[in-house]
Amino acid sequence: MNTAILLLDCPDRKGIVASVANFLYGHNANIIHADQHRDDGLGLFFMRVEWALDDFALSLGEFAAAFAPLAREFGMRWRVEDSSRPLRVALFVSRYLHCLTDLLHRHQTGELPCVLALIVSNHPDAEPLARFYEVPFHHIAVDPARKEAAETAQLDLLAAHEVDLVVLARYMQVLSPRFVAAYPQSIINVHHSFLPAFSGARPYHAAYARGVKLIGATSHYVTEVLDDGPIIEQDVTRISHRDRLEDLIQKGRDLERMVLSRAVRWHLEHRILCYANKTVVFD
Amino acid sequence: MNTAILLLDCPDRKGIVASVANFLYGHNANIIHADQHRDDGLGLFFMRVEWALDDFALSLGEFAAAFAPLAREFGMRWRVEDSSRPLRVALFVSRYLHCLTDLLHRHQTGELPCVLALIVSNHPDAEPLARFYEVPFHHIAVDPARKEAAETAQLDLLAAHEVDLVVLARYMQVLSPRFVAAYPQSIINVHHSFLPAFSGARPYHAAYARGVKLIGATSHYVTEVLDDGPIIEQDVTRISHRDRLEDLIQKGRDLERMVLSRAVRWHLEHRILCYANKTVVFD
Amino acid sequence: MNTAILLLDCPDRKGIVASVANFLYGHNANIIHADQHRDDGLGLFFMRVEWALDDFALSLGEFAAAFAPLAREFGMRWRVEDSSRPLRVALFVSRYLHCLTDLLHRHQTGELPCVLALIVSNHPDAEPLARFYEVPFHHIAVDPARKEAAETAQLDLLAAHEVDLVVLARYMQVLSPRFVAAYPQSIINVHHSFLPAFSGARPYHAAYARGVKLIGATSHYVTEVLDDGPIIEQDVTRISHRDRLEDLIQKGRDLERMVLSRAVRWHLEHRILCYANKTVVFD
Amino acid sequence: MNTAILLLDCPDRKGIVASVANFLYGHNANIIHADQHRDDGLGLFFMRVEWALDDFALSLGEFAAAFAPLAREFGMRWRVEDSSRPLRVALFVSRYLHCLTDLLHRHQTGELPCVLALIVSNHPDAEPLARFYEVPFHHIAVDPARKEAAETAQLDLLAAHEVDLVVLARYMQVLSPRFVAAYPQSIINVHHSFLPAFSGARPYHAAYARGVKLIGATSHYVTEVLDDGPIIEQDVTRISHRDRLEDLIQKGRDLERMVLSRAVRWHLEHRILCYANKTVVFD
Repeated sequence: MNTAILLLDCPDRKGIVASVANFLYGHNANIIHADQHRDDGLGLFFMRVEWALDDFALSLGEFAAAFAPLAREFGMRWRVEDSSRPLRVALFVSRYLHCLTDLLHRHQTGELPCVLALIVSNHPDAEPLARFYEVPFHHIAVDPARKEAAETAQLDLLAAHEVDLVVLARYMQVLSPRFVAAYPQSIINVHHSFLPAFSGARPYHAAYARGVKLIGATSHYVTEVLDDGPIIEQDVTRISHRDRLEDLIQKGRDLERMVLSRAVRWHLEHRILCYANKTVVFD
Repeated sequence: MNTAILLLDCPDRKGIVASVANFLYGHNANIIHADQHRDDGLGLFFMRVEWALDDFALSLGEFAAAFAPLAREFGMRWRVEDSSRPLRVALFVSRYLHCLTDLLHRHQTGELPCVLALIVSNHPDAEPLARFYEVPFHHIAVDPARKEAAETAQLDLLAAHEVDLVVLARYMQVLSPRFVAAYPQSIINVHHSFLPAFSGARPYHAAYARGVKLIGATSHYVTEVLDDGPIIEQDVTRISHRDRLEDLIQKGRDLERMVLSRAVRWHLEHRILCYANKTVVFD
Repeated sequence: MNTAILLLDCPDRKGIVASVANFLYGHNANIIHADQHRDDGLGLFFMRVEWALDDFALSLGEFAAAFAPLAREFGMRWRVEDSSRPLRVALFVSRYLHCLTDLLHRHQTGELPCVLALIVSNHPDAEPLARFYEVPFHHIAVDPARKEAAETAQLDLLAAHEVDLVVLARYMQVLSPRFVAAYPQSIINVHHSFLPAFSGARPYHAAYARGVKLIGATSHYVTEVLDDGPIIEQDVTRISHRDRLEDLIQKGRDLERMVLSRAVRWHLEHRILCYANKTVVFD
Repeated sequence: MNTAILLLDCPDRKGIVASVANFLYGHNANIIHADQHRDDGLGLFFMRVEWALDDFALSLGEFAAAFAPLAREFGMRWRVEDSSRPLRVALFVSRYLHCLTDLLHRHQTGELPCVLALIVSNHPDAEPLARFYEVPFHHIAVDPARKEAAETAQLDLLAAHEVDLVVLARYMQVLSPRFVAAYPQSIINVHHSFLPAFSGARPYHAAYARGVKLIGATSHYVTEVLDDGPIIEQDVTRISHRDRLEDLIQKGRDLERMVLSRAVRWHLEHRILCYANKTVVFD
C-alpha cells in the first residue's frame, strides 16, 4: 500500500490537530497512523501522520502548495514523504563486519525498506559480502595525510548514487565537519557504549577498566561534535566479573547490531524528528 | 491542572480524528495528549484524548448531550473521565504483604492518583500497615464453606465505600462469577507467572520444576475464567540453575510489585481500553 | 591454549571437591575455571573443571583409567572433553534463514568453536548462503508420506560426517523418536515462544491472540516430547498493542537468533549438564 | 543452618583449590557453596567457600591459627565470616524515603539477614517509618558550616551501635574523607544514574537534557572520590521522548530500590570482594 507521511513541528497552541486532520480529511485521506508529542517545557508540538494514497485527492506534487497556508498559520516546519520512494542508503564500514552483515541480511528479509545504493569501505574486507548481496562496493583507502581527498571521493560517490542516508556500520574514521554538513540528520552512527558514558576511543576497554555491570551501545545522528549527536536508540546487556574484555566485545556486537538496525529502520520509515539535540521516535 | 479524558472505540472509517478534534477545538479544548490505535484485522479504531478543562466551553455534565450526535454517527462506545475526581480503590490482600506495602508507599509518594478507600483481607496480618498508612482495614474471614456470605459482606463494603476499582494485591481467594460480574473490567489481579505459562496454583513451583530460565509476573483484569482476563502488563527476570525455589519466590516479589503497580496506575490514569480479551494501553 | 574439560555429577557428599582438586593437582593440572552446583532437593552435586594441558602429566587417553577409581568411589557420571577437538556440527534449516545466517556469521567471526560439517535442508533456499560460507549443503526433500526415508538419508549423512551436534535453525519438521534417540542431548532446537507458553505450531499467532505484553524464544534440547526438552536459554522482548502479527514475527527473529546462538556456543564449550529435564549452564 | 564463609584472594598459581579444599575436608567441613574467579590480566585468584558448621572440627576462634600456614604459603588476603552473626547496619536517609521504605520492608520479609541497628537522617521525615518498623531513629541536622561536628556525632553513634555497614539510602550529603576512611568498603551508596554517565548532582536532569533512551541507577562502595567507588550493581529502564523529567524520577525510584537492595543483600551475604576499584560478586 502506498502511503504518504507528514512530519511537522511548530509552537504548541490550540487547534493544530483539528486543522491538520481537517486538511487531510478534506482531501479524502484515509489516515493509517497518527502520533503526536508535546514538549511542555519548550512549548513545542510534534506530529507524524501517515495516510493511504489510494483515495487521496492531491498528488504529492500538489501537496506543498495546498498545505502551505496552514503551515504558515501555525509556523510549522514540515516535510512530506512518499513511502513508495524508498530512501537510497550508503553503508560505510571498516574491518568489523557484524553490523554490515546484519543490515544486509535484514534488507534481504524485507525489514529495511530502502535501496542499498552502495557500500564504502577504507578496507577491502567487505567486498565478498557486498558481492554476495549484490550491492556495489567501493574501496576508498583513507590515508591520514590525505583524508580530505578520500572524503571528496566519498562525497562524489554519494552524490552520484543520489544517497539519502549514510549509515556508519562500524566505520572507524571520524568524519570531517564538511562531510557532516553535507548530510544533516542523515548520517547514523553506532557507538559501542552507553553514551554519554565512554565516548571516544576504545569504550569496551574503558568499561572493563571501570568495572561496570552493564555494557551498552548507542545509535545516533552524527554531528560535528564526536559522539554527541541526537541519540536514536540505546540498549544494554548484563556482564559480570567473569567477563573478560573479549567477552565484552563479543556481547557488545549483538547490542551494536540491534541498536543500529533499529535506528536505520526508524529513519527509513520516517519516524524520527530531531530537536534540541534529541530525537522524537514515533512508534 | 484539571483535565478531562475521552476514551472511545468504534468501527474504523475516514474522518474520526477530524471530527473529534473539531468537536473539542470547537468547544475551546486545549488538547494535552492524544493517542489512537487501529486494529487493522478487526477494523476497529481506538482513541484517548486528554485536554485541560480551564478554557473548555462545556461542563462535563453537558458533555454527553453535546457529544452524542457525533458518537452516534460513528457508532462509538465512549466515556469521559474527570481527572479531578480520583477513582476510589479497594485493596484486597491475604498474608503476603509486599504488593500492599508497595502500593501504599507509592500512593503516599503521589504515584497513584486515587483515594485508597479501604483494605479488605481474609487475614488480620495487614492491619498494622493499614493503620500506619491510615487506610480503613476490614478483616473478613473466608470460610470455604461460607464463601458466599463473605463475598456478600465484601460487596456490601465496596458499595458502601463507592469503590471504582478493586486491586487484588496477592489476594489468595478465587472470586465468584457474581463478584466478577459486579465489577466488569474493574478488578485487577497480579498472577505470579508469565501468563499463559503456569496459570493456576503454585506457579513458582511449576516454573522451578520445568527449568525455565526466566520467571515472570502478569497483571490482568479479572474475568470469569481464572487467569484468563485481558493482560495489562508483564515483566520477567532472569534466573539460573543456582536459584532455588525460594530465590524464585523472592525475585518474583519484585516483579509482582512492578507489574501490579503499573497496571493500577494506568487504570487510574484512564489509559486502558479492553477489546477481544486484550488491552490497549495508551502511553 | 589447549585445555581439557571435566564434567561430572554424583550424589552429594563431603570430599568431592577436595578429591577432584587433589587428583588434578597431583597430575600437575593448571586449573583455569572451576564451577560447581548442588541441587539440595535432589542431593546431587555437579562440577565443571577446565585446565590447561601444557603441564598436565596425563594424556587424555590415559585419563579414564587414572580417574576411574575416584569416579567409582563417588558414583560419578563423568566425561572429559578436549578443547582442541572442536565438535562437528550439522545445521538443519527450512526456509527462514535468519538463524542460519546468524550462526554462519558468528562461526566466521570466531564466536562458535566448531566445525560446520554440513547444512541440511528440506528446501533449496539456503544453498547460496551455504556456498558463500563454504559449508557443504544437502537438500533432502521431506515428503510427508516418505518421511522415514528422508530421515534415513539425513542420519546417513550425519554418520558420514561424524556429526556431534545437530542444530535445528528453524527446521520446520518434527523429528521422529528414532532420530532423537540417535543424538541424545545432542540436538538443539529454537522454539519461537517463551516455553511452556505457546508450545506447538504458530506460537506468534497464539501470542498475538492472547494479547501478551512480551514475546519470547526458547532454545532447548530435543526429546521425544515436542517442545518439552531441557531448556537451555530463553529471552523476551517487549511488545505493545501497536505491534501487529508481522511485528511480533520480526521482533521474534532477533530473539530466536540470540537464544539459539547462545545455546549452541554453551554446548560447544561443554558448559551444559542435563538432569531432571533441566539444564545446568556453567558460566 | 549456621555456616562459615571464607573469602580470599592471592596471586594465582597451581594448587590453591586443592589446598583449600583439603584444609576444609581435613577438618570435616561440609561445603555448601564454592565459587572462584581468576583475573588473567592481573594474575589474581579469588575464592568464596561456604560450609556448614555442624560437623566442622574447628571453632571459628581456632580457624585463624589453623589456616595461617596455608594462607602464608599462598600469600592470601582472607577473612572468615560467621553467618550466625548478622552484620549490624545503619541506614542513612534524607527526605526521599522510597529506598528506606523498601529496605525496611525487605528486612521484615527476611530478605536482608542483618540487624538494623539505627536510622540516621539530616531530616525528621523518616521518623514515623522508623517507629513503625521499630528501628531507633536519630535526627542529626547537617549545617553546612558545622558539617564536621555532625559527622562526629554520626561516627559516635555508629561506634556506639557497633555498626558494620553504612547504607546511604538516598542520603544527600557528601561524606568527608575522614568518615569514608572509618568504614572502608563498608559504605554502600545508590547513585541515580548509570555510572560513569551523569555522576554528580541532578543526574535525572542531565539525562533528560542529553536525550538518552535508557536511564539507570548504580549501587557502589563509597570511596574518597565522589561516585567513583567500586560498582556493585547497576540496572536500567527504557524511557522515550514521552517521558518528562518527573517520569524519569518516578521510573528511577524503582531502579534505585532494586540496585541498592541487591547490593546490600550481597554485602550481608559476604558475596563481594573488591580489587582494582572493581567488585567480584559471587553468586
